[in-house]
Amino acid sequence: MSGAERTITAGELAARLNGSLRHCPPDRPISEVRPLEEAVPGSLSFLANPKYAAKAKASEAGLILVDPKADVGDRAVLVVENPYWAFAQSIAWLHPEPAPDWSDTPIHPTATIHGRVSLAPGVTIGARSEIGAGSVIHPGVHIGDDCVMGEGCELFPGVVLYRRTRLGKNVRIHANSSLGSDGYGYVLVGGRHEKVPQVGWVEVGDEVEIGACVTIDRGVLGATRIGPGTKVDNQVQIGHNCQIGSHCLLVSQSGVSGSTKLGDFVTLAGKAGLVGHIEIGARSIIGGASVVAKSLPEGSFVTGYPARPHKEWMESQAALNRLPGVIKKLKS
Amino acid sequence: MSGAERTITAGELAARLNGSLRHCPPDRPISEVRPLEEAVPGSLSFLANPKYAAKAKASEAGLILVDPKADVGDRAVLVVENPYWAFAQSIAWLHPEPAPDWSDTPIHPTATIHGRVSLAPGVTIGARSEIGAGSVIHPGVHIGDDCVMGEGCELFPGVVLYRRTRLGKNVRIHANSSLGSDGYGYVLVGGRHEKVPQVGWVEVGDEVEIGACVTIDRGVLGATRIGPGTKVDNQVQIGHNCQIGSHCLLVSQSGVSGSTKLGDFVTLAGKAGLVGHIEIGARSIIGGASVVAKSLPEGSFVTGYPARPHKEWMESQAALNRLPGVIKKLKS
Amino acid sequence: MSGAERTITAGELAARLNGSLRHCPPDRPISEVRPLEEAVPGSLSFLANPKYAAKAKASEAGLILVDPKADVGDRAVLVVENPYWAFAQSIAWLHPEPAPDWSDTPIHPTATIHGRVSLAPGVTIGARSEIGAGSVIHPGVHIGDDCVMGEGCELFPGVVLYRRTRLGKNVRIHANSSLGSDGYGYVLVGGRHEKVPQVGWVEVGDEVEIGACVTIDRGVLGATRIGPGTKVDNQVQIGHNCQIGSHCLLVSQSGVSGSTKLGDFVTLAGKAGLVGHIEIGARSIIGGASVVAKSLPEGSFVTGYPARPHKEWMESQAALNRLPGVIKKLKS
Repeated sequence: MSGAERTITAGELAARLNGSLRHCPPDRPISEVRPLEEAVPGSLSFLANPKYAAKAKASEAGLILVDPKADVGDRAVLVVENPYWAFAQSIAWLHPEPAPDWSDTPIHPTATIHGRVSLAPGVTIGARSEIGAGSVIHPGVHIGDDCVMGEGCELFPGVVLYRRTRLGKNVRIHANSSLGSDGYGYVLVGGRHEKVPQVGWVEVGDEVEIGACVTIDRGVLGATRIGPGTKVDNQVQIGHNCQIGSHCLLVSQSGVSGSTKLGDFVTLAGKAGLVGHIEIGARSIIGGASVVAKSLPEGSFVTGYPARPHKEWMESQAALNRLPGVIKKLKS
Repeated sequence: MSGAERTITAGELAARLNGSLRHCPPDRPISEVRPLEEAVPGSLSFLANPKYAAKAKASEAGLILVDPKADVGDRAVLVVENPYWAFAQSIAWLHPEPAPDWSDTPIHPTATIHGRVSLAPGVTIGARSEIGAGSVIHPGVHIGDDCVMGEGCELFPGVVLYRRTRLGKNVRIHANSSLGSDGYGYVLVGGRHEKVPQVGWVEVGDEVEIGACVTIDRGVLGATRIGPGTKVDNQVQIGHNCQIGSHCLLVSQSGVSGSTKLGDFVTLAGKAGLVGHIEIGARSIIGGASVVAKSLPEGSFVTGYPARPHKEWMESQAALNRLPGVIKKLKS
Repeated sequence: MSGAERTITAGELAARLNGSLRHCPPDRPISEVRPLEEAVPGSLSFLANPKYAAKAKASEAGLILVDPKADVGDRAVLVVENPYWAFAQSIAWLHPEPAPDWSDTPIHPTATIHGRVSLAPGVTIGARSEIGAGSVIHPGVHIGDDCVMGEGCELFPGVVLYRRTRLGKNVRIHANSSLGSDGYGYVLVGGRHEKVPQVGWVEVGDEVEIGACVTIDRGVLGATRIGPGTKVDNQVQIGHNCQIGSHCLLVSQSGVSGSTKLGDFVTLAGKAGLVGHIEIGARSIIGGASVVAKSLPEGSFVTGYPARPHKEWMESQAALNRLPGVIKKLKS
């Protein structure tokens, strides 16, 4: 997860959020925000939807943000009016984004450039970042603070790595792609879309190739992950906290919404779209321009919107072509 | 509108366009091009489609480009063979684009950088542009001439603001997005697509966040507008002269064609598409990957292509799944 | 094609690929890789699909990679287990990519800048590249090695031209578009997607305008071509070896998969998608968000997924809206 960047007591959180503590001493230290499933005793989680109450009861979180109606037994909770909004504010307090640490030189003096790196003019590299041996960095690439790259990477012109991006070995990223932009997360409060701070990062495995004008958002908390050997075509969009398996193929203009998981060897054909928070089983194939709204078992092959088994979709489209004639016949 | 950049007489326009003036003295000064609805006595408009003849009659335009068959009573007109092409040529004459005013330094000496701005290496800022106090400008951002930004903006690496872009306060724009590119406007003349000059600009309200690799075209004339509090996800496309309301949500890979208007609090789900010149009522929701070809009243919820009420679309897709079986039964 | 960059004998190829030569002297020189149709006596081709056996028999290729079951008569062949993978490896050997030839200065000393070029700060131009007279190059444009541009071009901020891109006269390319990225070509070998090297280039005709965040991949071998007078809107994707005709209109967020050919004056409406290896006849119109999976004759007008004649698609969608009612009636 994001690491302990600041510590605050449960009591201070309660005061700031205008909430009330239950089953929790006010001096309990809280040092990070985590999802219920990954929480540890020093972390804060939240429960916004009652259907996840069992997860909250089973969580090891030191403190859970809940609304006044939530029933999570004797767990330590902080009761607030809007747990999701309280969660967003807590991220800002516990995981503050440092200001960019720019130096007078395009390559920050604290950056580490390993051997045989080919560095073009017009590259900027941030504080404490590390460029793997034998990498080729083309003109106009911008690497933020605290990034790590393995050996043999190639970044084409205009590639942007936000703060804390991690690339494995032999990763190739084509022109004007960006890794680590903020995910699309807002909470409606008093008629305004308030931002849920995005403080995670992007992790890319070995031998991944990423096309041009691809966008991969960093996690809200923790990582958005692209597994080793996966190949991402031009203009693909990958949302925050997606977990893309190994050796997947994401063809041009496809898109994966936040927190969706792809097993290994999944293929998204061109312009396919997946909603958020679903799981696509390994070796599945999603047809071109199809929209998947539910999780799919291993080896699925679906097409259409909503996506259905490819054979059924073919049959229904053939039947649709005959429909005007069928209706005419029925009338006469 | 674009402001009076040059003045020409009606007679000179007639000579250049090989047209004939009616009800107009040849020495009438014309100093700008405007749509019929927004025209003033010193401006030139055009009527290409007879269904807008009433608008032409009601317009305050000093001169209207019309074809020989047009009937607009005793309004001052310039009769030409192809009014739209004449309009395009007139934009070029009356609103000439100045050459970029580059200096030897990346930050133009006439630019104004207000207090507490954090400016990265590798940034270029054009002539007469103004950067609001407390803004953060990342490496490789390119700000054109005559741009204005409010306080507290953050532009991530590779963001491009074309000439005359205006940003409100606390606007965040993610990597490699571009505001102010030319809209897609051509007129077919003699077997070639001749360009309709695009001389407008982009205006973005306070508290807007724009994702990575977003493209927003400037207006043909006047502004493309994004209302305050609106959030635009990665890889969204917004065409020339669109008017996007306040507090809208435009999810990843959605697209809005030219001159379309969105009311406040409209949501476009991922990959949704809107044709040009329509109006979407406030608080409407457009389903994912749906295509909207007609204006919609407030509070609509539509899905599919062509988009229909969401419930009807769900029913028709369920029926479609059963169709092959129904046809088989009908046969036997 | 890519030009003779290296020469190797048929016998050495056989040794490296662990294959066996038939009807071919081991000292035959091979100096380039070409498709069957364009092969010459000094070139290597491949036959991966038995349905193209006739093409292989008719080809002038000096040597053809085939699998053990292929029957191409007495043509000179190199029998290997996986001809496509052997082809990919041979490209790497015969058409090695030179390392980028960066100098200490952003404008390489061997680049040629013709008269009246307006060059912004922060531009990089590669070795041996040529900028046509009167061109305007905005900040942060990156032009690779061995590029050629005609007169009067304008490249907006962040445009990237990969190595060997060729632009005609009066070409305009908007912000953050990229020409010449690698096409999406892989071959599955032992559970990994091995890269098919992409060593071709992009050629753009006179008077072409390209929007913002457009991606055009270079050919695997040879050129991806955009014909003169064609206009490409924002966020369009064009795959490797596509041949786009003259005076076409490719509207925003449309995509063309590899090796597909468009005749002249073809229109792709917004978000349209074409699969690879098909031909679209001149003056065809592809409706918005439609997917075309088969070649189309001249003057087609199709819509939907799969795309069908526009009128039929309209009728079937109208019938679909009535389907739930029809099924209800049939039941009662």
